[in-house]
Amino acid sequence: MPSSRPFAKWIEENQDKLVDRLAESVAIPSVSGDASYRPEVHRMGGWLADTLTGLGVSVKSVPLGKQNLDGQEIDLPPVLLGEYGSDPKKKTILVYGHYDVQPALKSDGWNTEPFSLSEDKETGRFYGRGSSDDKGPILGWLNVIEAHTKTNTEMPVNLKMVFEGMEESGSDGLEELVVAESKKFLSNVDAVCISDNYWLGTTSPCITYGLRGLAYFQVSISGPGADLHSGVFGGMVHEPMTDLFAVFSKLVTPSGEILVPGIADKVAPLTAEEKARYEVIDITVADFESAAGGKVTLSDDKATTLMGRMRYPSLSIHGVEGAFSAAGAKTVIPASVRGKFSIRLVPDLTPQDVNELVTKYLNDEFAKLGSKNTFKVEMLSGGMPWVASIDHWNYKAGTKATETVYSKTPDFTREGGSIPITLTFADALGKSVMLLPMGRGDDGAHSINEKLDRSNFIQGSILLGEYLTEVANFAE
Amino acid sequence: MPSSRPFAKWIEENQDKLVDRLAESVAIPSVSGDASYRPEVHRMGGWLADTLTGLGVSVKSVPLGKQNLDGQEIDLPPVLLGEYGSDPKKKTILVYGHYDVQPALKSDGWNTEPFSLSEDKETGRFYGRGSSDDKGPILGWLNVIEAHTKTNTEMPVNLKMVFEGMEESGSDGLEELVVAESKKFLSNVDAVCISDNYWLGTTSPCITYGLRGLAYFQVSISGPGADLHSGVFGGMVHEPMTDLFAVFSKLVTPSGEILVPGIADKVAPLTAEEKARYEVIDITVADFESAAGGKVTLSDDKATTLMGRMRYPSLSIHGVEGAFSAAGAKTVIPASVRGKFSIRLVPDLTPQDVNELVTKYLNDEFAKLGSKNTFKVEMLSGGMPWVASIDHWNYKAGTKATETVYSKTPDFTREGGSIPITLTFADALGKSVMLLPMGRGDDGAHSINEKLDRSNFIQGSILLGEYLTEVANFAE
Repeated sequence: MPSSRPFAKWIEENQDKLVDRLAESVAIPSVSGDASYRPEVHRMGGWLADTLTGLGVSVKSVPLGKQNLDGQEIDLPPVLLGEYGSDPKKKTILVYGHYDVQPALKSDGWNTEPFSLSEDKETGRFYGRGSSDDKGPILGWLNVIEAHTKTNTEMPVNLKMVFEGMEESGSDGLEELVVAESKKFLSNVDAVCISDNYWLGTTSPCITYGLRGLAYFQVSISGPGADLHSGVFGGMVHEPMTDLFAVFSKLVTPSGEILVPGIADKVAPLTAEEKARYEVIDITVADFESAAGGKVTLSDDKATTLMGRMRYPSLSIHGVEGAFSAAGAKTVIPASVRGKFSIRLVPDLTPQDVNELVTKYLNDEFAKLGSKNTFKVEMLSGGMPWVASIDHWNYKAGTKATETVYSKTPDFTREGGSIPITLTFADALGKSVMLLPMGRGDDGAHSINEKLDRSNFIQGSILLGEYLTEVANFAE
Repeated sequence: MPSSRPFAKWIEENQDKLVDRLAESVAIPSVSGDASYRPEVHRMGGWLADTLTGLGVSVKSVPLGKQNLDGQEIDLPPVLLGEYGSDPKKKTILVYGHYDVQPALKSDGWNTEPFSLSEDKETGRFYGRGSSDDKGPILGWLNVIEAHTKTNTEMPVNLKMVFEGMEESGSDGLEELVVAESKKFLSNVDAVCISDNYWLGTTSPCITYGLRGLAYFQVSISGPGADLHSGVFGGMVHEPMTDLFAVFSKLVTPSGEILVPGIADKVAPLTAEEKARYEVIDITVADFESAAGGKVTLSDDKATTLMGRMRYPSLSIHGVEGAFSAAGAKTVIPASVRGKFSIRLVPDLTPQDVNELVTKYLNDEFAKLGSKNTFKVEMLSGGMPWVASIDHWNYKAGTKATETVYSKTPDFTREGGSIPITLTFADALGKSVMLLPMGRGDDGAHSINEKLDRSNFIQGSILLGEYLTEVANFAE
């Protein structure tokens, strides 16, 4: 039974106007990863600040200094700190979103202009870069505020907003700002809601309560002073590539078992209650095969497949830098290669633990080779895993809101990837953080033809409003 | 005791004039691998034909048709067939060289303009692209002809010449021409001399009587329909990179032992006589360390090191196409990767044998992985190894000439790489082929700052003349 509250009705009835605002925002190509687009990111920040102000939100635009990108020193986009309401009797909810987007060119294979929102009337899908990631969800919060105002409904909570313009490019400067503001602007936040992820599939809403962490490694092997001709030197020298293949073959089995000793021991045991959560998730192994584009799942069991992504570590070898990587044939002995792999982390694995275990293991394995080459293991980046309790009122409110809007209990999911800001908020504020998605699993957030379904934009906006309404009903 | 023959004296006395001709040839940037330089390759062919004609050589310029390069259809450079003398009482020697060169830009790191021959007066080195590879050696033959004419000395042999303009870019069309002419223009050739290689080191001349062959493999592993995010899919799917590392780690040990069953069995046994040849070669392991730019030799023994390059097969892993290969970190699961490796071949290994052994072995190893990915082994190219008898009069003449000019017995070497035209001449003509180098091991043929020492150009030209003189002295 959909929401029948006045604000929800207003959103339904005024949806074309709300879509126009989404189209306005998509038309600003706020690509953060390309210096030449940086003025557009600033323009987008300005547009968003003005729009918020127009809705009665008090907005502070916080500059984050400069960065070097593409050989230029340019201004980082500002973080917008928004505040709507400050009634001490109400809870205060912090919402987060990002107004920058991934790059997109029509020539990448888009069917429509990426920076012009195009509706496919037949399917009710809006195509455009940022429609789902993350302009749609940001505008969802704005829709809720406007709907309350227009229907003279009192906002059930105080809202604080953190909208950044660098999420697609490493969120430079955001963590420092959140930490600095945790005792100031963000000091009275009661819970956090982030709408920057997706349903697992295309039919069932979900709430996400966990993320895997990451430990990304680079293994450098060097020997010769320069690339050598394999005709001249093959059979005379220790080859870095041979060593790399020998060592990396000891990382993980083809069936996905991580061979680094000590890692499996640190994975939190699976409880029956948690296991049951995977078994009821509305998805099939065939859905994953379809998403992967091939019948290559490690398991034919749904829960096992889900747990492989959500609650167990995984190790992927990404590539080799410094070797021959083009098409065709080149008879080179690469002199210096850097192999890259990463391990996705789950509780209770920390990047520090994993770094120690991996470094010791790989150094030991390399020593066994008897090679005269030099060998170095580095962890290039590390991020903690995160899991929240779904028993917190924040999650109960999200669950109830989902049940109201979509008439079904949400899937409780953990994402296999990382959203670092989640951890930043959880750590800096010490409050419950929940990921409440608007879009579907097939939105193609970082791909060509990114889209957001009209129903997800409209019902997703209503979901955010229902969530805020429910928040007010739950005792702390 | 250097050569005291009149032609040798003339070369010594007129060396500056001969250097001028070398400079003229280097000034034509006859880069065969870049379509925009193709007119210069044709200009170089014209210059060489005119110069040969001016020396009394009868020259036929044979067009080889067209090729596609850099998206353009352009004319292949002609092969010049030269003939000098046709006395049926004399032996007929076929000499080969190539008038095209590797690319070179000053910005690559050259200290001088690459297409302007620059002498360093202190070291007596001529820097310039093509000085050593292979314009110097071609002009060596011309110097010999001119010196005989100018000193009224009768040429001791009939000369036939094959000078091509595509050696650095795959010798397109040459093999077909040689086969076609083997019963015509080349039908009366008694032996072949190719001057297109280098001394092993920098102090001792050598004669090369063997080349390794090559079997180049590409192993394709595919599974997912597109590259996947390791956060989302890591732990759920069979990853092609994991399979590739598992399989390639079974190819060769870090100490260079090839693990493909059956390959070692087909290597011709080492005789004491052959072993002795490596032991007297004037080089040290330190020289190889210096050439490799690192202390990474598989063995600390000179003969073992030389044999690793010259008379045993070797396996090198060159790289991976389709995986992440840039600097930095990218959390991709590559969907489809192509691993490249090659095996250098020695008698009695044939590419066909090796292809069968490798394909069966790798398919078996992949089957053991239990992966759902698809796997394909292809041999991209194959070339036979070649070894000649150093007891033939062709080699005896080369040896005697070297002893005369350099006052030492040449090192008898086998090259670790391939020079496919050698095999073409040996197979098509059924005659002895010898590689008689002009330049030194540090000439940097395919690198920046390619050079030819003045003494190598002058004494090397005299060597070619001495060789032709000695040829006349040996009975068939």
